[in-house]
Amino acid sequence: MGHNTPRGTSPLVLTIDTMNPNVKNVEYAVRGPIVQRAVQIEKELREGVKKPFTEVIKANIGDAHAMGQQPITFFRQVLALCSYPELLKDNMFPEDAKSRARRILQACGGSSLGAYSASQGIDCVRQDVARYIERRDGGVPCDPDNVYLTSGASDGIVTMLKLLVCGEGASKTGVMISIPQYPLYSAALAELGAVQVNYYLNEEKCWSMDLSELERSLAEARKHCNPKVLCIINPGNPTGQVQSRQCIEDVIRFAAKEHLFLMADEVYQDNVYAEGCQFHSFKKVLFELGPQYSNTVELVSFHSTSKCYMGECGFRGGYMEVINMDPEVKAQLIKLVSVRLCPAVPGQALMDLVVNSPQPGEPSYTTFMKERTTTLSLLAEKAKLTEEILNTVPGITCNPVQGAMYSFPNISLPQKAIKEAKALGQAPDMFYCMKMLEETGICLVPGSGFGQKDGTYHFRMTILPPTDKLKLLLAKVKEFHQKFTRQYS
Amino acid sequence: MGHNTPRGTSPLVLTIDTMNPNVKNVEYAVRGPIVQRAVQIEKELREGVKKPFTEVIKANIGDAHAMGQQPITFFRQVLALCSYPELLKDNMFPEDAKSRARRILQACGGSSLGAYSASQGIDCVRQDVARYIERRDGGVPCDPDNVYLTSGASDGIVTMLKLLVCGEGASKTGVMISIPQYPLYSAALAELGAVQVNYYLNEEKCWSMDLSELERSLAEARKHCNPKVLCIINPGNPTGQVQSRQCIEDVIRFAAKEHLFLMADEVYQDNVYAEGCQFHSFKKVLFELGPQYSNTVELVSFHSTSKCYMGECGFRGGYMEVINMDPEVKAQLIKLVSVRLCPAVPGQALMDLVVNSPQPGEPSYTTFMKERTTTLSLLAEKAKLTEEILNTVPGITCNPVQGAMYSFPNISLPQKAIKEAKALGQAPDMFYCMKMLEETGICLVPGSGFGQKDGTYHFRMTILPPTDKLKLLLAKVKEFHQKFTRQYS
Repeated sequence: MGHNTPRGTSPLVLTIDTMNPNVKNVEYAVRGPIVQRAVQIEKELREGVKKPFTEVIKANIGDAHAMGQQPITFFRQVLALCSYPELLKDNMFPEDAKSRARRILQACGGSSLGAYSASQGIDCVRQDVARYIERRDGGVPCDPDNVYLTSGASDGIVTMLKLLVCGEGASKTGVMISIPQYPLYSAALAELGAVQVNYYLNEEKCWSMDLSELERSLAEARKHCNPKVLCIINPGNPTGQVQSRQCIEDVIRFAAKEHLFLMADEVYQDNVYAEGCQFHSFKKVLFELGPQYSNTVELVSFHSTSKCYMGECGFRGGYMEVINMDPEVKAQLIKLVSVRLCPAVPGQALMDLVVNSPQPGEPSYTTFMKERTTTLSLLAEKAKLTEEILNTVPGITCNPVQGAMYSFPNISLPQKAIKEAKALGQAPDMFYCMKMLEETGICLVPGSGFGQKDGTYHFRMTILPPTDKLKLLLAKVKEFHQKFTRQYS
Repeated sequence: MGHNTPRGTSPLVLTIDTMNPNVKNVEYAVRGPIVQRAVQIEKELREGVKKPFTEVIKANIGDAHAMGQQPITFFRQVLALCSYPELLKDNMFPEDAKSRARRILQACGGSSLGAYSASQGIDCVRQDVARYIERRDGGVPCDPDNVYLTSGASDGIVTMLKLLVCGEGASKTGVMISIPQYPLYSAALAELGAVQVNYYLNEEKCWSMDLSELERSLAEARKHCNPKVLCIINPGNPTGQVQSRQCIEDVIRFAAKEHLFLMADEVYQDNVYAEGCQFHSFKKVLFELGPQYSNTVELVSFHSTSKCYMGECGFRGGYMEVINMDPEVKAQLIKLVSVRLCPAVPGQALMDLVVNSPQPGEPSYTTFMKERTTTLSLLAEKAKLTEEILNTVPGITCNPVQGAMYSFPNISLPQKAIKEAKALGQAPDMFYCMKMLEETGICLVPGSGFGQKDGTYHFRMTILPPTDKLKLLLAKVKEFHQKFTRQYS
């Protein structure tokens, strides 16, 4: 096999030397080596290998149900009804669940979730999404023709980048992304061969965006590529900040002035916890800035079924709304998505339920609201808890988790540890996280997987484990950090 | 907006002139202009516009449920149970459906379809797939580590091409595809900027593959690119042939000799109707050829939940099995699929049910077998009917529909029609199909969307409409063809 044969002489067609080099450049830390090791350790535990812990706690990924969060009853009732419409005859389901299921099925070919939908997504779901956006944005109009259903937000982001990226050498498309970033962006850019243009969030100011930093980054990029796109994640991943209205306004004015296409990743729009913080959609602020902006600035916003209070990652539901997109490009976009036929229909159905949830007076309303509120309050409580406990650890500094599902604390690492890591060819925070995993069973993602200022170190930790387990986890992190610091001082 | 502004002066960032040119080159006839017009006509009918017909009949796409085929009861019961596990307490479901649901849920994070799965797919589903492949191939071993779950077969095909395509100019990867082809291939190659290398199927010999044609095509391609991949669709789409064992053997020997990576699209593996025809998997034949081949030839085979007797397109379930893949490349493949997190979990669950269907002695077995057999016999009947009726039309010649879901008849078009089409800048068979749509409401896909020998014309028609409607459709096609021929003679 290829790996046993000297390079260049493999009898195989496809080897590490002959494969697409862009794919080789892709990195994705959220499911990287540390997570692979965690899976291995779990297997070892099952096989009876002795460890200093009995369980791996995965705080590496925003996977709410895996951490014990319960699905919203109403959503799952409707999905069951849509999957097996015989259940519509049964009396065990509330009437509003049945009527939602009937409405979705009527919109499906042959009244079946098993038919392909239109490639852009089921018509009535796109209409419901549009009405949801209008309610959310205080009446700013939304045209269902601008809404595209996707397989989770990742699918939409990659599709948009595919349209935008072209050119070679100095005219190659540059895409501005925040550092720290969610590594889907760097991975997609590597795969497409685009230029990643970094702008740094201001850790001292709770991971806010600085206009001067955007200007620096853009000026720098213009020396060697053609920067055309500015990506923002709000609320932030991995950094958990919620951007102020003023900041969003600044970003929009900047994009307009500098002729940049805006991509707003807004999948955590319901995940806002900190007092005084509020979610402002880019679309709403764009329209409030007046026609000079709302008629010209190109914006796409992404949402999904995976986060917020529902946490339905496995269904891969999502949508994107495009604003001011050239109609000729929209036709190309429709053609492009048609090649993959359609997003999975159960995910489309679920997206519909999220944007068209039970209303006051409907039989499922009370239960729905109770489930929704409980989940969001618990998350708010855990966000606070995480920040507070991490800040009690000498050498760890954690910004408030204003929103999303993650803390991204700064960790000071002793020089000796940094040296040892470098000798092993590892990023120092990878060395730290790998050691933590081996000693405590806690699985975090090193900051280097998201990008960070040189000489600073972080990890990303989700706030999703149940409160008791989260407390245990934080106590273990504290103990480990203290021990690690002592060991390498 | 861009389209109203002279080229090159658009105030927009993303226009038809600045977008990714590879995406512009993508074509996808199965959902192309003719289908868009069909959707428009349906809308016009609903709005009361008078037409010479009352209904659009869509025979353009292999979408079984949209054509009235019923889902398999057992599959949908299990999906409902997995969606809303409260139903496990109910007595309305058979025990085997419940135990399948419990098994799938146990393999999900937090016992929920809403958790992300491993990027390669749920472990136990991959194990079930491996056992299915072993049974299908008479015991040839299958390692679950070689199985990757996908979002339908399209997703797997695109992922594999992504790994394989690289280089520029004369060293750019060439990918051999059959002509006529399924346009996902040409679309993916255009998007990736690879070289499409055409080899022609032999229409005179029931769309079989000729070794001499493969040799011609490869020799030709080697003059200007680096051909590395050979794609085969068996049973064939759009051409409905089933390849003989001998033919598959020849293809494998050819690939081995010429150092080509084999991609076998085998999504129609249960759809074999013609007497004397049988499905032979490339994997099985590869292993029967002995270790000289089975240890060296690189092969990937694709399957999906969308076709066969289940026709569950909307769930986007699928898998691929890779054989003899360089372990280093496998690690890259796992990394690549991890960026998109995971295939939709309901589709994975459904794939599991397909490869692990009710067994003799289980309560659902009889119903399952009855449903499966009924669907496949109906399809066989319709395949025969389509061939027979089309061959009664002077000027239409139709090969036997040995398998898959399509007929791809040859149509003679009068010179006058060809001229008129060319004057309009249309492919002659597009002109023909568009006219048929406007006059009869029948939606077919012109052969030019799949590729065909110069000077020949075809259309692709699915055999999926219910028998009565199919008869009506065929009668209308006959009538239209005769009228069209008279009109342009």
